[in-house]
Amino acid sequence: MKQKRFFLSDSELPQQWYNIVADMPQKPQPLLNPQTRQPAKLDELSQIFATECCRQELNTTEAWIDIPEQVQELYRNYRSTPLVRAYGLEKALDTPAHIYFKNESVNPLGSHKINSAIPQCYYCKQEGITNVTTETGAGQWGMALSYAARLFGLEAAVYQVKVSYNQKPYRRILMQTFGAQVIASPSMSTRAGKDILTHDPNHNGSLGTAISEAVELATTTPEKCKYTLGSVMNHVSLHQTIMGLEAEKQMEMAGEYPDKVIACFGGGSNFSGICFPFMRHNLRQGKKTEFIAAEPASCPKITRGEFRYDYGDEAGITPLIPMFTLGHKFKPANIHAGGLRYHGAGAIVSQLIKDGLMHGMDIPQLESFDAGLLFARSEGIIPAPESCHAIAATVREALKCKEEGKSKTLLFCLTGHGLIDATAYEQYINGDLINYEYK
Amino acid sequence: MKQKRFFLSDSELPQQWYNIVADMPQKPQPLLNPQTRQPAKLDELSQIFATECCRQELNTTEAWIDIPEQVQELYRNYRSTPLVRAYGLEKALDTPAHIYFKNESVNPLGSHKINSAIPQCYYCKQEGITNVTTETGAGQWGMALSYAARLFGLEAAVYQVKVSYNQKPYRRILMQTFGAQVIASPSMSTRAGKDILTHDPNHNGSLGTAISEAVELATTTPEKCKYTLGSVMNHVSLHQTIMGLEAEKQMEMAGEYPDKVIACFGGGSNFSGICFPFMRHNLRQGKKTEFIAAEPASCPKITRGEFRYDYGDEAGITPLIPMFTLGHKFKPANIHAGGLRYHGAGAIVSQLIKDGLMHGMDIPQLESFDAGLLFARSEGIIPAPESCHAIAATVREALKCKEEGKSKTLLFCLTGHGLIDATAYEQYINGDLINYEYK
Repeated sequence: MKQKRFFLSDSELPQQWYNIVADMPQKPQPLLNPQTRQPAKLDELSQIFATECCRQELNTTEAWIDIPEQVQELYRNYRSTPLVRAYGLEKALDTPAHIYFKNESVNPLGSHKINSAIPQCYYCKQEGITNVTTETGAGQWGMALSYAARLFGLEAAVYQVKVSYNQKPYRRILMQTFGAQVIASPSMSTRAGKDILTHDPNHNGSLGTAISEAVELATTTPEKCKYTLGSVMNHVSLHQTIMGLEAEKQMEMAGEYPDKVIACFGGGSNFSGICFPFMRHNLRQGKKTEFIAAEPASCPKITRGEFRYDYGDEAGITPLIPMFTLGHKFKPANIHAGGLRYHGAGAIVSQLIKDGLMHGMDIPQLESFDAGLLFARSEGIIPAPESCHAIAATVREALKCKEEGKSKTLLFCLTGHGLIDATAYEQYINGDLINYEYK
Repeated sequence: MKQKRFFLSDSELPQQWYNIVADMPQKPQPLLNPQTRQPAKLDELSQIFATECCRQELNTTEAWIDIPEQVQELYRNYRSTPLVRAYGLEKALDTPAHIYFKNESVNPLGSHKINSAIPQCYYCKQEGITNVTTETGAGQWGMALSYAARLFGLEAAVYQVKVSYNQKPYRRILMQTFGAQVIASPSMSTRAGKDILTHDPNHNGSLGTAISEAVELATTTPEKCKYTLGSVMNHVSLHQTIMGLEAEKQMEMAGEYPDKVIACFGGGSNFSGICFPFMRHNLRQGKKTEFIAAEPASCPKITRGEFRYDYGDEAGITPLIPMFTLGHKFKPANIHAGGLRYHGAGAIVSQLIKDGLMHGMDIPQLESFDAGLLFARSEGIIPAPESCHAIAATVREALKCKEEGKSKTLLFCLTGHGLIDATAYEQYINGDLINYEYK
């Protein structure tokens, strides 16, 4: 009998996250304080983030970081997630490739974001913080944070980009269901928001303005409130390695090891999480696994961006990050994969790409939905528009195997489901969806 | 370390469904042909349903029915579903009760409906049928059927109640994503639909009219097209026993046996599926497990209906079913738990209730959402409005344990998630939701 899904028992779950920086031949360059242009120090960063997250952010020496016992316990509510052999997709493609996916769509709130929301809220709680804040676009990260805050009895204030707040009400409602305060950004609740609205009362918001508001809220009361972020930062990547560490054991249960690991790419949280644990065997033992970051053709920071210091936000108030970037003022096209509409790549991934150890693959929007629909119809899971990019890259690789008559083992990360993104599928099915060029 | 979730390996999955009728001391009374008032025969029923489903419907002697190998293989795409110890909910209630739930919300399409959609489509395919049809309200069953039809290369036509088609577009879109034809009912595509629209061009539809249209489509071309149903019928309950059979093994892994099994109740599909395998030990070995059907206070067929023959549909065209019923013309209040807005209970459950072996518990809408919100905030899963009724009944029982200082083991079925029902939660949070009386 063919085993299709692989799980770990609770006692097999990873008890440490993997910090790849310790194993990197070339360390990523440091974050810089935007005022002084000097490497950002712990006490500067911890005005914004929980102090323990900042320690993790700056840790370049320890490969393994203990997962706090309480975080492990909360992980056990939903982890391990299944590793699934995609026999249905293989059959639909008639490919000799073996395709596996790590299914994070069955998580609470339907995406991988919860994996970092839990530890970030845990550390805030430990440090006596009572309030957390963040920004969100479509709302995957905001939902995860709202739930995690609730678990630890923290008040959450989520600045949601105004256009999403109004046009995509489902995730807003779900955040409110967890008790979060959701504020359409720009708002009158911060100086930054007031300034923007004074100039343009009809401003529709952007991730840039929402970050400005959230960071302002945190930094004006740092002893009480911290800012949290769902991607880009090293500590977020660290938390997300729980996925790859599980997948490594699960692939072993399946008797396989991936030739290629594929993930969609926004700021790097799921890509890092699934790839870094396998990358460690490339770094330590000379394995030759290939790592493919599937990014939107209209927002191709990896394949067409440049490597330099840039701000993490549009307004230019965050630390400077050494990144592959399209420029922090870049306005991404209005694709449905909201989580991939980001101008830059996190520092670690950027360094690994610069060193030729990973690479990007850009996927046009229509190709991503072609692949997503094929996956939905063959595996029964409606993938999130972000995940569709990873599926499209996997389909390309699986068809290459077919052409070449070679069997390769492919692993991709299914970051989340797309049930709340149904309108995107409607546009696609009706032929109303278009490709956007990068310009 | 406390194990929170229990899974079965593929080789441990049930290979047979359990047909409780074989073990019942009092068999359910037969379905009647509505014209002749004589017991419905195989060849009459198979004008409507796949012949093998009709055989199962009429099977009163065999306790175990083999699950076809291909259906087992498709089950292995997502089964077993997790059995979860709800430590978060226990803590929130401060109860000595041990609470477990069978989590069907992580299934393809987010509910338990797929468990019967797959075998129904399988049998149609085996019998040379090319088209399937059904009705759907909010769309959980329609989605599951659309996906299952796709798996077997069948064309699916889903008659969706017009008011849901227009007001709740997400599930309609998702059905179309799987390639189903979704028709707002009443439509001009059937004689029944035309008649209704001729009398009332603005008719908003009901499950009754949608059933009429779907059954008409099937019975006018029975050699090509069959009707499928997501609840009420014996063969649907049979297929759903996969849940209870898994749960039985998983409870054993947890070292427990349920004192009470609790499920929401519409027509009986999830209730039967989770309860019947445990009921068999009551019937065979004298176990004393209690079975609680949580129904809406505004649609209380079990607690306030009468036991008699009645039609399965509003229009009165289906076989007559021996059921607890509020009358087939009963118009349920407009509660959010669309799947529970049904006037009658299936024949097997009705007989077991009549014989005092199971009982109902009616839950007001607001209490159901109180419980659903508590569950969401403590377990991270937004429950479907239907499932909220099972959770509310479980909360009542858990609080009773607390009052009495007794630890009982409670098991409930989480039929699905409520991510697409976000607007119901919004109304609840805003205080706009009301209770409806039964009248």
